[in-house]
Amino acid sequence: MTAAAGEVPDTGASFRAEIYEQPDALIRLIEAPATAAACDALAEGGRRTVRLVGHGSSDAAASYGVYAFGLLPGWTAMRDSISLTVYYDAQIALVESVVIGLSQSGRTPDVVEYATRARSRGAATIAVTNDPGSSLAEACDVTLPLAAGPERSVAASKTYLNTVAAMLLLAGSAAGRREETAEVIRTTAEVLRTALPALEEAASRLATAFAYVGRMYVIGRGIEFATAREIALKLTETCRVAAEPLTATDLVHGPIAAVDALVPVWTIASPDESLHAVKDAAARARDAGAVLIASGSAASDIDGAAYRLPVPPAPTPLAAPLLSVVAGQLFAAALARMKGLDPDQPERLSKVTLAP
Amino acid sequence: MTAAAGEVPDTGASFRAEIYEQPDALIRLIEAPATAAACDALAEGGRRTVRLVGHGSSDAAASYGVYAFGLLPGWTAMRDSISLTVYYDAQIALVESVVIGLSQSGRTPDVVEYATRARSRGAATIAVTNDPGSSLAEACDVTLPLAAGPERSVAASKTYLNTVAAMLLLAGSAAGRREETAEVIRTTAEVLRTALPALEEAASRLATAFAYVGRMYVIGRGIEFATAREIALKLTETCRVAAEPLTATDLVHGPIAAVDALVPVWTIASPDESLHAVKDAAARARDAGAVLIASGSAASDIDGAAYRLPVPPAPTPLAAPLLSVVAGQLFAAALARMKGLDPDQPERLSKVTLAP
Repeated sequence: MTAAAGEVPDTGASFRAEIYEQPDALIRLIEAPATAAACDALAEGGRRTVRLVGHGSSDAAASYGVYAFGLLPGWTAMRDSISLTVYYDAQIALVESVVIGLSQSGRTPDVVEYATRARSRGAATIAVTNDPGSSLAEACDVTLPLAAGPERSVAASKTYLNTVAAMLLLAGSAAGRREETAEVIRTTAEVLRTALPALEEAASRLATAFAYVGRMYVIGRGIEFATAREIALKLTETCRVAAEPLTATDLVHGPIAAVDALVPVWTIASPDESLHAVKDAAARARDAGAVLIASGSAASDIDGAAYRLPVPPAPTPLAAPLLSVVAGQLFAAALARMKGLDPDQPERLSKVTLAP
Repeated sequence: MTAAAGEVPDTGASFRAEIYEQPDALIRLIEAPATAAACDALAEGGRRTVRLVGHGSSDAAASYGVYAFGLLPGWTAMRDSISLTVYYDAQIALVESVVIGLSQSGRTPDVVEYATRARSRGAATIAVTNDPGSSLAEACDVTLPLAAGPERSVAASKTYLNTVAAMLLLAGSAAGRREETAEVIRTTAEVLRTALPALEEAASRLATAFAYVGRMYVIGRGIEFATAREIALKLTETCRVAAEPLTATDLVHGPIAAVDALVPVWTIASPDESLHAVKDAAARARDAGAVLIASGSAASDIDGAAYRLPVPPAPTPLAAPLLSVVAGQLFAAALARMKGLDPDQPERLSKVTLAP
């Protein structure tokens, strides 16, 4: 039922190939001269409030950006409301802000419109996109091309990882630590390359137990909340599982009431200062009867997990999301294949979302 | 199976009584001298960046605050990361910020800790809490008591509505329009009082069709995203439905792939500039086979809805969430009763969440 590493399955071939291409894609990003130029523009721009805008996987990466900017240069970064500016035309002062528009296609209409309006009102604007010829790139002062190469699967993998890495590089540069940050990403890429085959095998074995699961919660906190969001999105779009991402604390502020043996809870456990909150939420979910999946490099710290999908340690806590999300990508790929679904072409989704 | 208005059911009696008490609670809030004092302190404090922190229903109200502050005084308000400051001790400049800590009990540990640290680092701090003697009130410079009266149901209703109203009053005051804003809330409270009995009857009739629903999406955008979050939370905690809130745009960036005839989609339709996005998302969900519930005062604008639960028009777009959420509260109360669940005491929840 599961595909061995190296074998090309009928469905999801692009998704799987692109997951495997991620180490190379990360290295392309850190080595591209355009990356350094965009990082310098941000670091030298003198604006210390960052407004991140994107949807779907790009918005998950924006969640990570809040932590990268908060922890490296100590800047305030927020996932800004797009509708306040685009729909309601709110007159918020933007001249002291730098806007980072996130869109792999560069064609998400309201992100392009947000960037256009923010620029006309005095914000500095940076496009982070896989298409440097896109309308988002045109709308912004500076472009940081993702350099991920063409992504054919509708379910994103390498563009997500490179967007997270771009956030880390931009934040590292803002803290005057661009080269050191690039080296952290390079090391992480090599750790990932080595880990991929065994991780795929483990994820494929695990997926067999989840063929009939209709809903899940995916729990992360802090730096890893982005990972929880992205894994939940992969499960939802490729496997048709209604997976909802929650912070460890949000779980116990309501949704824990809906948890029982029919709702598996996936926890992202990385060794940082938020781990105790994830452990506490996991214990409460287990007490409610939930089957626990523990992933991340601290997966062994989650007591009573029925399944574990550990990844190797990252060189720094901020690099952990580049590894921990891959367990979820590979699990989603395996589960989709088992269910006869095609992650390359999920029903009702397209590579460029042109919704309002 | 449904309770007529005025009849007291065995379970959820407090939840229902507190839903009915909301018009009075709103009026207590706008008439309390402490409300005016807290509003003046914010308006005169000279800080125009607002950091909102809370969990659960308080965090849903914070989503509303982002719009109220963006649209009335044109200030930047964000739902700030609690873990950046409390777990990771990030060194972000806070001296130009005003922190608004939201907690009905005033005892949410990480919200209290966030406020304490932010205050010691130079932020102005306001507690919005139903307990002016709580540790959150102690930790902050200024307290805006919710004046909702004792809330006995674990599932919040009147403290949520008064927190939303407090956000509106604070934002209105920041724009120099406190008295006008208070009058809008007063009018809205009277509209709600008149609407309640018929709305309860309609919600109870509607709930009978949802006894076996395990998961739902709740869709709002812009000003009404807070309502989508709060209705989803009510359904999850009181009815054990895995209800996930999504912006209209986020639905089509992934989760639409998991929608089919087994996943009802609840839409909040209010007559403002985001309505077209909600209409578009609703059309896509309907095309995927979903049963649509349309609520809000523009419920009739959602084409092809199987069920409608309209509320009367609000006096201004920013007041709409004070009415539209009540349809969800009453639906959750009716559905919980039908399923034999007790919204006053959901399993595994307590009135004060002391999680990390």
